[in-house]
Amino acid sequence: MKVAILSSIAWRTPPRQYGPWEQVASYLTEGLHEKGVDVTLFATKDSITKARLDGTSDSPYAEDRYTDPKVAECLHISHLMEKAGQFDLIHNHFDFLPLTYSRLVKTPIVTTIHGFSSPKILAVYQKYNAGNSYVSISNADRHESLDYIATVYNGIESADFPFESKVSDYLLFWGRIHPDKGTYEAIQIARQAGKTLILAGLIQDEVYFDQEVKPFIDDRSVFYMGNVGPDQRKTLLGKALALLHPIRFEEPFGLSVAESMFCGTPVIAFNRGSMSELIQDGKTGFLVYTVHEAVQAVTKIGQIQRQECRQWAQAMFSKEKMVNSYLDVYDQVLSRQSS
Amino acid sequence: MKVAILSSIAWRTPPRQYGPWEQVASYLTEGLHEKGVDVTLFATKDSITKARLDGTSDSPYAEDRYTDPKVAECLHISHLMEKAGQFDLIHNHFDFLPLTYSRLVKTPIVTTIHGFSSPKILAVYQKYNAGNSYVSISNADRHESLDYIATVYNGIESADFPFESKVSDYLLFWGRIHPDKGTYEAIQIARQAGKTLILAGLIQDEVYFDQEVKPFIDDRSVFYMGNVGPDQRKTLLGKALALLHPIRFEEPFGLSVAESMFCGTPVIAFNRGSMSELIQDGKTGFLVYTVHEAVQAVTKIGQIQRQECRQWAQAMFSKEKMVNSYLDVYDQVLSRQSS
Repeated sequence: MKVAILSSIAWRTPPRQYGPWEQVASYLTEGLHEKGVDVTLFATKDSITKARLDGTSDSPYAEDRYTDPKVAECLHISHLMEKAGQFDLIHNHFDFLPLTYSRLVKTPIVTTIHGFSSPKILAVYQKYNAGNSYVSISNADRHESLDYIATVYNGIESADFPFESKVSDYLLFWGRIHPDKGTYEAIQIARQAGKTLILAGLIQDEVYFDQEVKPFIDDRSVFYMGNVGPDQRKTLLGKALALLHPIRFEEPFGLSVAESMFCGTPVIAFNRGSMSELIQDGKTGFLVYTVHEAVQAVTKIGQIQRQECRQWAQAMFSKEKMVNSYLDVYDQVLSRQSS
Repeated sequence: MKVAILSSIAWRTPPRQYGPWEQVASYLTEGLHEKGVDVTLFATKDSITKARLDGTSDSPYAEDRYTDPKVAECLHISHLMEKAGQFDLIHNHFDFLPLTYSRLVKTPIVTTIHGFSSPKILAVYQKYNAGNSYVSISNADRHESLDYIATVYNGIESADFPFESKVSDYLLFWGRIHPDKGTYEAIQIARQAGKTLILAGLIQDEVYFDQEVKPFIDDRSVFYMGNVGPDQRKTLLGKALALLHPIRFEEPFGLSVAESMFCGTPVIAFNRGSMSELIQDGKTGFLVYTVHEAVQAVTKIGQIQRQECRQWAQAMFSKEKMVNSYLDVYDQVLSRQSS
């Protein structure tokens, strides 16, 4: 089976720091390759893979202000579509634009919908609902107007997030610094619980950072480590008492939540979006609704067995499980095609 | 011959006010239809044509802040591309994005390049240079790295811009209010020439308008009429002593320059971009390089025969001439295809 994985080109695949879509595309590509599938990864040319790499962008457009994203995107997508005949299946991790080429090629396309950035993009998914195969990354993220062939949870290379039994006495916020992610709420939770808080992640909303976050950073009880890379990330996650994830939106999946549990670190999350699918309440963390409840959860964090977090993550969110689930999806699509 | 005209959907075709690409696509569609060509216009659904209309957008995205332009664009373009087999030829007036679908359909595509909004978009034109047929709208706008099948000047329905012999004593600035268009310079020319100036057009750069233009609007010697529609436009153009066009960029074509000459109104323009192709210096206007030279040109405006402006415009920039030129291009492309 010859498969093309179409990754995003906002960031490298895998990303140097931030880049969840590229991270998932990378794990899937490497996992398929390890299984002996003939995979070509369409990504930025500086991407790293053991499979075949193809692409048109020298570097990620999010790292290069001289590139017009629209230009880079359509050249990237059309490059693959013009080679569609070389593949048995195309797996699209690149949002809605590739769908608009899908009826012009014969190769079946599987599209993983990594969340809806805006209700405005739904029109494209709706138009191409018939004849395409959509995969949701959580049941919570399914849209009622669309048909899905499966939900496949994002999978993670467990070796990248080793289990850690010896923890330090800090709480961690890990993610984009943005109101959606509740950075401000995480600070309030840590302060009220009397715990040290470490913040790490890409500053996506500068005004929010300056007004709601920065005033609390004192390098004594609240630290900001920047947009840290993979090495520092696993240490920060592993050593934390708990990950705070007080999201303020219906998050389709939380990669950092799964990564945290791989390290054995429980997660205290606001119960929105996919959180109830990711976290076993009382077993691998706590699902709460308010800052006050989150503070209470911090006091109970010792009840969580860190080994149980690891086991749950391994069972549900491993790279291997994701790869096998996608192979199932591919088989379904190809048998549908030939019948 | 079955032709699809792919118009932009930023504005209606024809535009209610501003919208030069849509205006040209409209004149061409109607002109081809009058010649008996089987034409389908792909444009916003509120567009007006005597030919067949097809499209996906209820209204222009520039008039609807709830629409995501990227979503509207790719749905519009793919809608036509999925029907490509129904046409002998597709004529693209929609910039670079449609090119990235062109190798996935068999129907030949002619692309009129209505100017390069940024050097960043050149990469797409370069990739699709081989196998596509590019038309420039002036010789000045040709890019050295691209091959062109023809230059076809934009054409105008002469009945929309009737000749006017009785003029008033004002100068006119007609165009987007933007530094590129030299609104500020037009004001300086009129002041130094001691003439009344009427400004009309879409405010595209609000800061520029507030800082460089608005302070001079006194409703005694400098007037701003807003983004006026077709009816008021022809009167304003026709009654003007001259159109001031002190552009500060390499303008690929100037629709207002041609429209002005149709009304018999000479044009005083900064000699950049296509201006030397549009204006016969000393006969249908003056090509100048500075505000000072433009002021001198105003004093000589009586030397211009308004009838000569009309004749020149009719000979060079009529709808009929444009339609015939494009029919030539279509014939070339189709004979190349069948040979």
